[in-house]
Amino acid sequence: MGSMVSKTENTWEVEAEKSRKVLRESIPEQWLLPQDKLPSSDRLNILSVPEESGLLTRKELDITESDATHLVEKMGAGEWSAEEVTIAFLKRATIGNQLVSFTSSINQSNLNNATEFMAEDAISRAKELDAWYAQHKKLMGPLHGVPISTKEHIWHKGRVASGGYVAQVDKIVPEDSHLVQLAKNAGAVFHLRTNEPLTLMTGDCHNNIFGQTLNPCHLKLSCGGSSGGEGASIGFKSAALGLGTDIGGSIRIPAAFNGIYGFRPSASRLPYDGIELPGAGQESVKCVIGPLAHSIDDINLLMKTILDQEPWDNEVSLVPLPWKKVDVSRKITVGIMWSDGIVHPHPPMNRVLKSAKEKLQAAGIKVIDWEPYKSMEILQLIITLFFPDGGKAITDLIALTGEPLSTGAATFLQHARELTVSENWAANAQRDRLRAEFHSLMKDRGVDVILCPPFVGAAPEMNKMDYGTYTMLWNLLDLPALVFPTGEVVDGRVDVVEEGYVPVNEIDKAQFERYDPKTFEGAPIGLQVVGKHLRDEETVAAAKLIESILKK
Amino acid sequence: MGSMVSKTENTWEVEAEKSRKVLRESIPEQWLLPQDKLPSSDRLNILSVPEESGLLTRKELDITESDATHLVEKMGAGEWSAEEVTIAFLKRATIGNQLVSFTSSINQSNLNNATEFMAEDAISRAKELDAWYAQHKKLMGPLHGVPISTKEHIWHKGRVASGGYVAQVDKIVPEDSHLVQLAKNAGAVFHLRTNEPLTLMTGDCHNNIFGQTLNPCHLKLSCGGSSGGEGASIGFKSAALGLGTDIGGSIRIPAAFNGIYGFRPSASRLPYDGIELPGAGQESVKCVIGPLAHSIDDINLLMKTILDQEPWDNEVSLVPLPWKKVDVSRKITVGIMWSDGIVHPHPPMNRVLKSAKEKLQAAGIKVIDWEPYKSMEILQLIITLFFPDGGKAITDLIALTGEPLSTGAATFLQHARELTVSENWAANAQRDRLRAEFHSLMKDRGVDVILCPPFVGAAPEMNKMDYGTYTMLWNLLDLPALVFPTGEVVDGRVDVVEEGYVPVNEIDKAQFERYDPKTFEGAPIGLQVVGKHLRDEETVAAAKLIESILKK
Repeated sequence: MGSMVSKTENTWEVEAEKSRKVLRESIPEQWLLPQDKLPSSDRLNILSVPEESGLLTRKELDITESDATHLVEKMGAGEWSAEEVTIAFLKRATIGNQLVSFTSSINQSNLNNATEFMAEDAISRAKELDAWYAQHKKLMGPLHGVPISTKEHIWHKGRVASGGYVAQVDKIVPEDSHLVQLAKNAGAVFHLRTNEPLTLMTGDCHNNIFGQTLNPCHLKLSCGGSSGGEGASIGFKSAALGLGTDIGGSIRIPAAFNGIYGFRPSASRLPYDGIELPGAGQESVKCVIGPLAHSIDDINLLMKTILDQEPWDNEVSLVPLPWKKVDVSRKITVGIMWSDGIVHPHPPMNRVLKSAKEKLQAAGIKVIDWEPYKSMEILQLIITLFFPDGGKAITDLIALTGEPLSTGAATFLQHARELTVSENWAANAQRDRLRAEFHSLMKDRGVDVILCPPFVGAAPEMNKMDYGTYTMLWNLLDLPALVFPTGEVVDGRVDVVEEGYVPVNEIDKAQFERYDPKTFEGAPIGLQVVGKHLRDEETVAAAKLIESILKK
Repeated sequence: MGSMVSKTENTWEVEAEKSRKVLRESIPEQWLLPQDKLPSSDRLNILSVPEESGLLTRKELDITESDATHLVEKMGAGEWSAEEVTIAFLKRATIGNQLVSFTSSINQSNLNNATEFMAEDAISRAKELDAWYAQHKKLMGPLHGVPISTKEHIWHKGRVASGGYVAQVDKIVPEDSHLVQLAKNAGAVFHLRTNEPLTLMTGDCHNNIFGQTLNPCHLKLSCGGSSGGEGASIGFKSAALGLGTDIGGSIRIPAAFNGIYGFRPSASRLPYDGIELPGAGQESVKCVIGPLAHSIDDINLLMKTILDQEPWDNEVSLVPLPWKKVDVSRKITVGIMWSDGIVHPHPPMNRVLKSAKEKLQAAGIKVIDWEPYKSMEILQLIITLFFPDGGKAITDLIALTGEPLSTGAATFLQHARELTVSENWAANAQRDRLRAEFHSLMKDRGVDVILCPPFVGAAPEMNKMDYGTYTMLWNLLDLPALVFPTGEVVDGRVDVVEEGYVPVNEIDKAQFERYDPKTFEGAPIGLQVVGKHLRDEETVAAAKLIESILKK
């Protein structure tokens, strides 16, 4: 697609406006909240606005509060139509996008979690599905009528995939990405495309085209990134299922921050064709696509639906492993990693982990304490392997327009150091050694899955997301990792600042000092379940078991 | 292992002598041919010397003329003991090594296909197996008592793995390579380690430690490489099974030249831990380990035996795919690639391919002509990806001792051009595009496997092996490829120089001009079967079907 990207004579501001225009014109205005229904400007959690607004019917609220698995059941039973379902989610998405634009206490216009609505296509597709159902008396496929939102750089035929770079606002892509094609085969409806940060190499969500995406659980906290728009979309229930990408935590961080589910599969399982990042051909740390969801059942549904279509027959780099049905018994051993050994988690995270340990033990699950392993070496290595080109692929694309870089992305890019090919090889070999050692360690310790924080605590304040080791560890090691919401939120009455804790290093100190229960009050706390390489099914099944015990 | 390699004060000649001493002291002298049994110095094919010598009993001849599958049957039935089998192969290997040393018309001492005999260990292991069999009344495993030779850089615990580099003659490795361990678990006996060329990046077999390995089918022709010692070992029936490595044809070229079987599996199937090449961490074109064998059944046996042990549980980079049983029906479609589009094959190869087409069609197999696809682009790209470090990993190791580089290796290294990481990424992306295109093409053309030459013709004259596209294509595309002997040899009466053929380019011209039936008279002609990525089982099964039809 390189030929579509070139220096223009316009300023970056003028170029960026092109994409904003696409967004504006795509918004279904008939579903916008009228001014008098907008929440007050001091409100932080806007999740219940759709219900309070009275603009969605009870059925539409029921629909949008369902997970995909339930939706499909209801559509299969003929109780809900695909069109009803699609319109319900479009309505909610319209409101969601409007709210994270206008209720923000930050004085900035064009704040969106959406980059483009695809309302017409989605409704027309839903009608086709309904007609199909009426004729055949059964669903078209396992994702029949499920409205899915997608991170912007996941291709939709004939639409722009800028990847958040102003230089790419004219990059119209020739086909749907492979995963989108397969989801469509299974009956999915794509109605919404969501925001992602410039460079994607940040755990926040700001770019110069669409601005800042907000966290609907707490408008002053980060929505996470890089699949931040997806985090906000699924968090607000603007879609039944979402698709994001993850090279360092970009699915799991927004999942954790928005109180939803996110899964990073092992590399080479889900189809990745039709997704482009600057620096194609980088394979030291592979970026993967994966679901953001409302339940673990939905993660299973997505994985199974896609892998049942044997995508490896069209995308040769994939591993030809069907999605197996596994039953995880209570005989598994869970290793709890209380800390990554670099940064001590915040009080609400410690509380949730402690409670998890007690509940798991009470349920008869064997739990051991997992000593972190070479976290600092892994952290340094993955950052090295993110940018062995010195960050050139990214900075060249930015330089084409001169658009400014966010502080977060700029800070991260500061670590970029160009390697020679020989140095890159040595770093690959180091990565392989760490993978082998870690795998042996899991076997030696008899641990099936690791339960650990996805982040230091709840979502950090906006634009203060600057620590990602808790997710990056698993990218370097290429282990499947699932984040789920514990149902717990930061509670100032119990989650008080730890008295007497002495930080062990400067990073720890900085993160420790950020904690103040007032800042995070009410923000959701997620946990992460990490399994063995290519044991994705076992990891998801273990997460389901753990979640069921924790929420009992 | 880097710490074991350093500059020494000795000349390279003195250093090299260390490894030759290990070899000399390991040769079971009691089994050497006496002077009066040596074949005459003008003899080119020495394959029948063991039989003519009278030094092997009829039983020992029967044993060494069996494939591994048959050996295991005989040992399972209690007719042959593991000790008898091991001794028979050791005897033959001793003679083989002696012959390719002393009957050569080239005036050079220390010409070996072996780098080390492991006679004592092998016999003692065989005795253990016999005792086990006596006690349990069954075989210890599916490779019970099968003598296997291994390419030198495949690790054996406590022994040197120099990889043919004088700088590494003191590199004693700490453990068996993973595949050797698993073969041992299954009852295999390792009795012989074989020669490989300096740099491994050549289709011939010469290094400064052990000199030149010869082709027992024809002492003036190349034995192939880089698994040249394995080619000679299996060709002479010095082992029941062999293990080599292949990054550009290094298993299949010696298989073709020595009239035996060789299989390059898709990458990441067979365990590769415990094999080191300079430049660890290079993953643009992966080197793989694979069998050289006496039959396709033996290739199946090896693959199944190893994969049944689920090596992915110990080596995390492997794909967790069990070795499936597949039955290939006659409904497959075979695409015959008559030429790579760069070099027109020699007359005997054309004859064999033509005959193959007729026989396959007569047997009811659908055969189409396979138009070559972007061979020149693939060739140039794989050479680029072999040496994106500018060849530094190799040349640095050579520079440590100042040992001289063979012409073949030097010529190949001349193509080395150092890339930046960004350029390496672009080349990876180009490779991925070619893989996708080629895969689509196979599907579009409805071809299950491609039947093609493994090389231009029979083995070239020694040290004239300078064209490897027919094997390298499949390395870049990461397709499984199996070479088998057709049973046909160069026959000057029919394989006359093609009148009127006008070469299409300089490479074609050079290869065309080399053909002269007298030079190659009697040399074996192999063919190659290439399947789809990770469809290794289907590829092996298709090869078996094709071979059975061709040899009817």
